[in-house]
Amino acid sequence: MEQPQTPLTPLSYIPSEIACAQDYEALAHQFIEPKRLAYIEGGSGHDRTLQLNRDAFQKWGIIPRPFADMAHATTALTLGSHALEHPFLLAPVAYQKLVHPNAELATAQAAAATDTTMVSSTLSSVTMEDIAEHSGAMRWFQLYLQPDEQNTTELVIRAVKSDYQAIVVTVDAAVQSPSIRVLRAGFVMPNEITAANLESQFQKPHEGVSKSRIFSDYMVSAPTFARLEKLIRECPLPVIIKGVLSPQDAAALHDLGAAGIVVSNHGGRTLDGTPASLDLLPAIRDAVGDRFPVLLDSGIRSGSDAFKAIALGADAVLIGRLQVYALSVAGALGVAHMLKLLREEFELCMAMTGCQSVTAIRSTTLHSVMRASC
Amino acid sequence: MEQPQTPLTPLSYIPSEIACAQDYEALAHQFIEPKRLAYIEGGSGHDRTLQLNRDAFQKWGIIPRPFADMAHATTALTLGSHALEHPFLLAPVAYQKLVHPNAELATAQAAAATDTTMVSSTLSSVTMEDIAEHSGAMRWFQLYLQPDEQNTTELVIRAVKSDYQAIVVTVDAAVQSPSIRVLRAGFVMPNEITAANLESQFQKPHEGVSKSRIFSDYMVSAPTFARLEKLIRECPLPVIIKGVLSPQDAAALHDLGAAGIVVSNHGGRTLDGTPASLDLLPAIRDAVGDRFPVLLDSGIRSGSDAFKAIALGADAVLIGRLQVYALSVAGALGVAHMLKLLREEFELCMAMTGCQSVTAIRSTTLHSVMRASC
Amino acid sequence: MEQPQTPLTPLSYIPSEIACAQDYEALAHQFIEPKRLAYIEGGSGHDRTLQLNRDAFQKWGIIPRPFADMAHATTALTLGSHALEHPFLLAPVAYQKLVHPNAELATAQAAAATDTTMVSSTLSSVTMEDIAEHSGAMRWFQLYLQPDEQNTTELVIRAVKSDYQAIVVTVDAAVQSPSIRVLRAGFVMPNEITAANLESQFQKPHEGVSKSRIFSDYMVSAPTFARLEKLIRECPLPVIIKGVLSPQDAAALHDLGAAGIVVSNHGGRTLDGTPASLDLLPAIRDAVGDRFPVLLDSGIRSGSDAFKAIALGADAVLIGRLQVYALSVAGALGVAHMLKLLREEFELCMAMTGCQSVTAIRSTTLHSVMRASC
Amino acid sequence: MEQPQTPLTPLSYIPSEIACAQDYEALAHQFIEPKRLAYIEGGSGHDRTLQLNRDAFQKWGIIPRPFADMAHATTALTLGSHALEHPFLLAPVAYQKLVHPNAELATAQAAAATDTTMVSSTLSSVTMEDIAEHSGAMRWFQLYLQPDEQNTTELVIRAVKSDYQAIVVTVDAAVQSPSIRVLRAGFVMPNEITAANLESQFQKPHEGVSKSRIFSDYMVSAPTFARLEKLIRECPLPVIIKGVLSPQDAAALHDLGAAGIVVSNHGGRTLDGTPASLDLLPAIRDAVGDRFPVLLDSGIRSGSDAFKAIALGADAVLIGRLQVYALSVAGALGVAHMLKLLREEFELCMAMTGCQSVTAIRSTTLHSVMRASC
Repeated sequence: MEQPQTPLTPLSYIPSEIACAQDYEALAHQFIEPKRLAYIEGGSGHDRTLQLNRDAFQKWGIIPRPFADMAHATTALTLGSHALEHPFLLAPVAYQKLVHPNAELATAQAAAATDTTMVSSTLSSVTMEDIAEHSGAMRWFQLYLQPDEQNTTELVIRAVKSDYQAIVVTVDAAVQSPSIRVLRAGFVMPNEITAANLESQFQKPHEGVSKSRIFSDYMVSAPTFARLEKLIRECPLPVIIKGVLSPQDAAALHDLGAAGIVVSNHGGRTLDGTPASLDLLPAIRDAVGDRFPVLLDSGIRSGSDAFKAIALGADAVLIGRLQVYALSVAGALGVAHMLKLLREEFELCMAMTGCQSVTAIRSTTLHSVMRASC
Repeated sequence: MEQPQTPLTPLSYIPSEIACAQDYEALAHQFIEPKRLAYIEGGSGHDRTLQLNRDAFQKWGIIPRPFADMAHATTALTLGSHALEHPFLLAPVAYQKLVHPNAELATAQAAAATDTTMVSSTLSSVTMEDIAEHSGAMRWFQLYLQPDEQNTTELVIRAVKSDYQAIVVTVDAAVQSPSIRVLRAGFVMPNEITAANLESQFQKPHEGVSKSRIFSDYMVSAPTFARLEKLIRECPLPVIIKGVLSPQDAAALHDLGAAGIVVSNHGGRTLDGTPASLDLLPAIRDAVGDRFPVLLDSGIRSGSDAFKAIALGADAVLIGRLQVYALSVAGALGVAHMLKLLREEFELCMAMTGCQSVTAIRSTTLHSVMRASC
Repeated sequence: MEQPQTPLTPLSYIPSEIACAQDYEALAHQFIEPKRLAYIEGGSGHDRTLQLNRDAFQKWGIIPRPFADMAHATTALTLGSHALEHPFLLAPVAYQKLVHPNAELATAQAAAATDTTMVSSTLSSVTMEDIAEHSGAMRWFQLYLQPDEQNTTELVIRAVKSDYQAIVVTVDAAVQSPSIRVLRAGFVMPNEITAANLESQFQKPHEGVSKSRIFSDYMVSAPTFARLEKLIRECPLPVIIKGVLSPQDAAALHDLGAAGIVVSNHGGRTLDGTPASLDLLPAIRDAVGDRFPVLLDSGIRSGSDAFKAIALGADAVLIGRLQVYALSVAGALGVAHMLKLLREEFELCMAMTGCQSVTAIRSTTLHSVMRASC
Repeated sequence: MEQPQTPLTPLSYIPSEIACAQDYEALAHQFIEPKRLAYIEGGSGHDRTLQLNRDAFQKWGIIPRPFADMAHATTALTLGSHALEHPFLLAPVAYQKLVHPNAELATAQAAAATDTTMVSSTLSSVTMEDIAEHSGAMRWFQLYLQPDEQNTTELVIRAVKSDYQAIVVTVDAAVQSPSIRVLRAGFVMPNEITAANLESQFQKPHEGVSKSRIFSDYMVSAPTFARLEKLIRECPLPVIIKGVLSPQDAAALHDLGAAGIVVSNHGGRTLDGTPASLDLLPAIRDAVGDRFPVLLDSGIRSGSDAFKAIALGADAVLIGRLQVYALSVAGALGVAHMLKLLREEFELCMAMTGCQSVTAIRSTTLHSVMRASC
């Protein structure tokens, strides 16, 4: 029988082997306990979508145009009513205590140190109030619709009180196709790690009318347009919808009054076989027009990935797994360093393509790259 | 010299490592004797079509549209004159005693327990009468045209007497390209396993007029349109034709009065190099119109595969190899469990795409997925 | 240092592990001395064209249409003025003593036994007169233009005297890109193996006007249209041109009076990076019209490969490497058996697609097959 | 811990295992110290562009047309005001002392011996004056714009004095994405190897106005059109711009008065994910018209690669890594031999395609090659 492997203790310095943001991925394997790593790394099913997400960025090449004057170039942008220093946000990632004792509080400190907007998860392992205290001025709250609508309302009220500036409703996780890798690894959530925001709440028992267990489960928290419209109408904050992959749905959400959308397949964690977020982005941008805020996540591992996403229609991108990997290696310092590397990689792409602003990237033409052989 | 490997005894419980229907495939390697496994697993020739069948499903991605109300969703459908609870049928698979002592009787019990239509093979290792006794209300009989037409008629009469509700004529196996893998493995059918339905019948000697052995063999049981038309005219049950891959042939069979077709390359077991069934499906659906029953087999290993087949033009799908694998692992219980998993995987796709009925899936648009690199 | 491996002695029976014609390829590795095998197996350069030749057949799938009456089906065809029993010819392969003591005489016996036309090489290791004595009625002579035109004429005269029925001029080997594999293996032609037809002839020294060694070498035996036209005009036998890959050249040769062409890249042995013969075939057929004899070689390893070549525009195919492999394993018996297997594999494709004649295959539509992932 | 590997001493003869120019690549692994090899071999980032460069040549096949009279064929060409014996130039490669004690002086001797134009690097490890003394009549000087414009001017004046015949300004290296492989290998430039041309010069401290380190660094030596126009206007030699990948930029440089361009991604050493130079070549040729000198580098490893580049729009090609590999193995002799092999491989392609001049290659049609499977 295999011995359980003891992960390394998080560092209080930047390890010298990190040459690019993505290097945190390989290094994190030494800092995260194997079953937890399977949970974090794995996609749903057989990881097909996980691979497609990465692969989608390889299909596009950036054409250098190194002749521009970059003296006044900037990465700053505005996203609806928000001004951002750069187009990287920290994606909502649940249960960060799995990889670092300081958990979301460390992440919040890194966000503050790098002018980064953190999107705090409903399922964070510390409360949103604690996160708010440790973070800088920029933070959004990610919301799962709760079986009991009253509980949903309470979460929104708490977010408003703690000065979160937007609500991000995740719609693609009402039921999830399990990760075969996680099932095989035998991961179960440790008792001491809980969804801190939800501790006083209890999920109602299922009462679906369908004979199907799947269909009944689904209805308990299904994000129907009716529910979303009510939330948008009643919520004092801008409401952004996360998990949109269909151009028709994107247009409908725009018309419903959403403040923006996140094109996302949940990092390949919902339905295996879903196409890459990036592949669906251009049609979605076409469907909602040039000015509607569109963010993207799923598969970003470098500044050039972000550059490609923006060239194909995104305004900004969310960073999920790299956030957790950097957190596991070196806590707040790791996350801040990872964000600094991403930003420099991104600036390099801007300089090499002569893009003096993030907006200019949108009119950059990428080159379709296809390999001939294996 | 390699020791012959002793397969495990079938279980009487569901093994905990099964996380999805396809997991029965890997597990079955421990429960089926290697030479028999080669016979079951192998395709014709060098398994090229076998691989194409699997690969065809990877070319398509499902786009989540998670906003629908699924409270009244259902997997039920009608197929010609038949009402089905769900679009999974058990494909005709010969000689099931090869993998489990209860053989087709166990399969029949699983079909009954899960409201599944079983298509019983001409080459079953127990008689169709015994199968009928053990199964529920839904069963079809698969027919190979016999060298002696009288024998064909007798098989149909027996099927009618045992309340089979349709005849499925397999047309793509008059001659078969041998499986190189099976020839290498040295598989021969054990003496104690026989085609129970045919025990009193003897194949007539070949009397072809052609100098070619292949052409002569072929004519002994060739499913010419003339023979099929006669069968359709005389048979009191609906006649479905299995093994159709050409749009022109599909249209001709529709005009001939067939009750439906099965788009199939026999799981890659006839002519190596035949394209995937799934790749040929859309053109066939176009050729026969929206209302003609079209089933598909060859390559289905998950509920999302079935969802894709239906989105591309099928009404329902047949499950072949997974049936045998689940049977080998845990008999009737295994087959029933495998069918339950398939159905739940399928329901998950419906919920995530907002399809409230099987019919609605047909208007779902899949996304073409192509990887950029290896 | 590695021990030289001793190849097995040729068999006088058919080994039981041969399940298809291509199986002779793997088995031959035990019967041919490694350096000689490198020479026979290797393509020019890095074997890129060699791989493309094989791969080209994988791009096409055959769609079964198993409903035809094959009682009077036949593989016979006419090719210009020649009547063939089936569309397989034995390609000219040099120096067959490298793999079997009976060499081309064994091959000729196999050709006679299977109603196959043998194309005897200028570089055969026994004389064309000896081959003629051992073969049946059907034989063609492959000709390399000699540095001294007088020698070319003498070879043609000898072929006419020995009742060869056509001259096949190979045009793609005036200079050859060396096989890296052969150079690495250190193969040199053994002293006892010689070009028996040329023993009395001596190649003239190079006298090119160009400063370039390559260009000078090339001109010594370059098959210019002027030389070919003269040969066609003066030769009493039909002249077929082998090594044609350009549609323009094919049309020009048709107009020049050639009796046919062989679309060939010399089995990948001339210029590495040349496309597959099969890929260029359809455009060539378009360029020469339906009735001009077009043969194909390079990459055929099965009856279904031949079927595909004919469906894409060929009248018949030449078998090169499989001929040598079968010869090495079991001499005349092996070659005859290999041809029988090819023919049966081919007949199976005809039966499964309802093609009652070779001509009917030309109007068969193949299905383009592309894999999605690796 | 791994022992540092001792590289072999350069040879004074041609090793017998070299069968083609590319063979110097594998052999060089024994002659270059591992960390230095990583620096030379590696591309930027994860070597994606490095692979794309090689792969791009595999997408195209050359169609043999072996019927031409090559008696008066030639590889000579004119490029603007320069007459070249053949279309191979030695690319500017920095710090050649890393692989051979004679460094750029050996390379210059090889260039002289083979009628090859050498492009000498700003960062050569011996001075351009020394190189000029050892080389033949043909040499160009590669220029990096210096932070202090005065230094740039001084370099040009020295090049004019030493009879360099053109200035090649490299524009794609103002900032570079680091090679992950090099960072991992821990390569640092040895103290004894310096940029001999720059020894008296000191880079000015950065004074960018941007908050971004990347943008500030970039501006120190950014090759803006304004700077390039001034250089072209003031320089007494033709100015060729190297590192052009965009058709728009190519057209702009043509209009600015450049004497030509080099389509190049710096051998995959600048921005990882940049498409292959070859893939971008046809659109660039279209943008600048037929007569503007266009060279290509990045990925050429054989004479057939060069043939393909010319068929797709280049006038001539630059050889980078093969130059260093051959230098490391056998100094001046190795480089001269490598160039001879490239030229013979190229002549073979001309003979096999009937191209009697380099200009004729431009109207040759290549065949697009795509593999079906892996």
